[in-house]
Amino acid sequence: MAEHLSQSELDYPFKLLEYFNGFRVSKVIFSACELGVFDLLLRSQEPLSAQHIARELSTSVDGMERLLDALVGIEILEVETTDGTALYSSTDVANLYLAKGSGKSLHDMIIYQSQTIYPLWNNMVDAVREGKNQNEKTFGLPPEDIFQAIYRSEEEKLKFMGLMNSSWVLDGHDIVTAFNLSCFQEIVDLGGCTGALAREMAKAYPSSSVTVFDLPQIVETAQKHFSQENNTVVFQSGDFFSGEIPPADLYVLARIIHDWPEEKCLTLLRKIYDTCKPGGGVLLVEAMLFENRRGPVMAQIFSLNMLVQAEGRERPPSEYIRILNKTGFHNVQVCRTGKSYDAILAIR
Amino acid sequence: MAEHLSQSELDYPFKLLEYFNGFRVSKVIFSACELGVFDLLLRSQEPLSAQHIARELSTSVDGMERLLDALVGIEILEVETTDGTALYSSTDVANLYLAKGSGKSLHDMIIYQSQTIYPLWNNMVDAVREGKNQNEKTFGLPPEDIFQAIYRSEEEKLKFMGLMNSSWVLDGHDIVTAFNLSCFQEIVDLGGCTGALAREMAKAYPSSSVTVFDLPQIVETAQKHFSQENNTVVFQSGDFFSGEIPPADLYVLARIIHDWPEEKCLTLLRKIYDTCKPGGGVLLVEAMLFENRRGPVMAQIFSLNMLVQAEGRERPPSEYIRILNKTGFHNVQVCRTGKSYDAILAIR
Repeated sequence: MAEHLSQSELDYPFKLLEYFNGFRVSKVIFSACELGVFDLLLRSQEPLSAQHIARELSTSVDGMERLLDALVGIEILEVETTDGTALYSSTDVANLYLAKGSGKSLHDMIIYQSQTIYPLWNNMVDAVREGKNQNEKTFGLPPEDIFQAIYRSEEEKLKFMGLMNSSWVLDGHDIVTAFNLSCFQEIVDLGGCTGALAREMAKAYPSSSVTVFDLPQIVETAQKHFSQENNTVVFQSGDFFSGEIPPADLYVLARIIHDWPEEKCLTLLRKIYDTCKPGGGVLLVEAMLFENRRGPVMAQIFSLNMLVQAEGRERPPSEYIRILNKTGFHNVQVCRTGKSYDAILAIR
Repeated sequence: MAEHLSQSELDYPFKLLEYFNGFRVSKVIFSACELGVFDLLLRSQEPLSAQHIARELSTSVDGMERLLDALVGIEILEVETTDGTALYSSTDVANLYLAKGSGKSLHDMIIYQSQTIYPLWNNMVDAVREGKNQNEKTFGLPPEDIFQAIYRSEEEKLKFMGLMNSSWVLDGHDIVTAFNLSCFQEIVDLGGCTGALAREMAKAYPSSSVTVFDLPQIVETAQKHFSQENNTVVFQSGDFFSGEIPPADLYVLARIIHDWPEEKCLTLLRKIYDTCKPGGGVLLVEAMLFENRRGPVMAQIFSLNMLVQAEGRERPPSEYIRILNKTGFHNVQVCRTGKSYDAILAIR
């Protein structure tokens, strides 16, 4: 791709202008999602005019029309003009991923990105300058306790849990099948949040028992707002830093290590090592950097996200191997899924 | 492209996730630009370590390293690791468009997008709901007078003028040569700001005289901060809404019509028609929409930008033809440049 950028970009920087415009394209999709455009179009089953959509969603006609047209431009909606009236309809992609109802909906991921991550990134210059998160400047929250910031209100907590929940909709299956984990009888997902990844685990390994371990307030909210009809996973409350963790054959740490400075990661992994049954292991789930620092872009961007919002970072495989070995784990295996998140398995 | 999005996106929405991530890619480039990364790399002439760059630019090493790596990921910088030290260097594209010194620098466009447009777009949902700009919610400024908001401080005025200046660096030549304008002796660029487009005009038509007409405070700042060694254009102060405009053969309105509601556009065009010499004309410069509403994406996004920041909109050719005919102009010719801005010429 370095070759792609060079010569033609020097003549006219189309790709660069597209990058500059990225924030506006994000907000076009996010805004439509927040206003309920994709839900309405999915429900309606027939193409609708901007006027109709604006009336249903209590927006201005003019603003809605421009938003719809931009969504057509990026091919997330379709338009046909009949007798001078433009009628908008949804695409399969929008129905599947952007409308609320679908089992693969990314609606909650979008809400969090639009309302929490977007404003945080407005302070990226200060994050790079200071080398620390910008919860205080962005939201007036103390920078010391990142999860106090993330869970600062019921509404924010729910939004964050929605984000976590919806990312496993995409990558969950690939993650749990990255390795054959059927030899592990008791699996505990530490910081397992809504249980979305744990449910994928239970589905892939029906003879294993899967427990979600998280803070009391998270377990309570998970059971209240994210429960499923057939309970394939068990919830257990606790604090994996200050308290004990339940015994298990396999511990899952999905997007936990990337939140914290190395010292805290080592403390947690040592606790897991000490509690883990012999022959048991730990499965880390993170977006892994390449060793040559050249990508993947998504993981590099996530690492900046950790800078602006948390205390941790993304790492290349060598770093996970080093940390795991340092805490006593061995036989470290790494699996890149080719999607956003990857898996690292280590044995006690 | 609708075909591109469909099937493979249904399996895994890579493109959609890229759109979601757009705001973060924008901010990676913007932040590096604000911190002076591209200027330092251009000056240094040799690859530099993250530590070196962080020291020179007074940032954290950790934050700078992550930012540099993300810039490598999107291929705006290059990295080579020697003896365990990663050394970063710039690309031709970054040197030409992102560093400050270059004649083609988009530095000022980036500063304005990052510091003014990015926060405005955080209120796009409200803009669509209310059908009006969000200067009040974003910056605490009265929504009535948009240029009072845009010129709210010396600093903001300078930034806005920098934005205007740097966009003609890219599209100026294509715009002024979209039609052969050599028959017009006296050319006046109404709201010509820093004179960047007017200078392109003077270069392409050396036997014409070119005047930039703008508000007194803009003319003053243009001459103070954006003057050029060999003066090919003349500046004149005034207000094209409340005052008189100078006589001319050709009036240029570059990104003026898109700021205002139709009634104000008609008033301005009538004034031009009345002052214009017979056989004279008006050249509109705007990002033109397609008649079928399917693009160009850039123009559709600009139209949403006008919603959130101003009182106007982008339009398809038919709308410009209608408005121009309504005010008496005829022989309307439209030229799409294939870049961000297009040209429309009409004769009195």
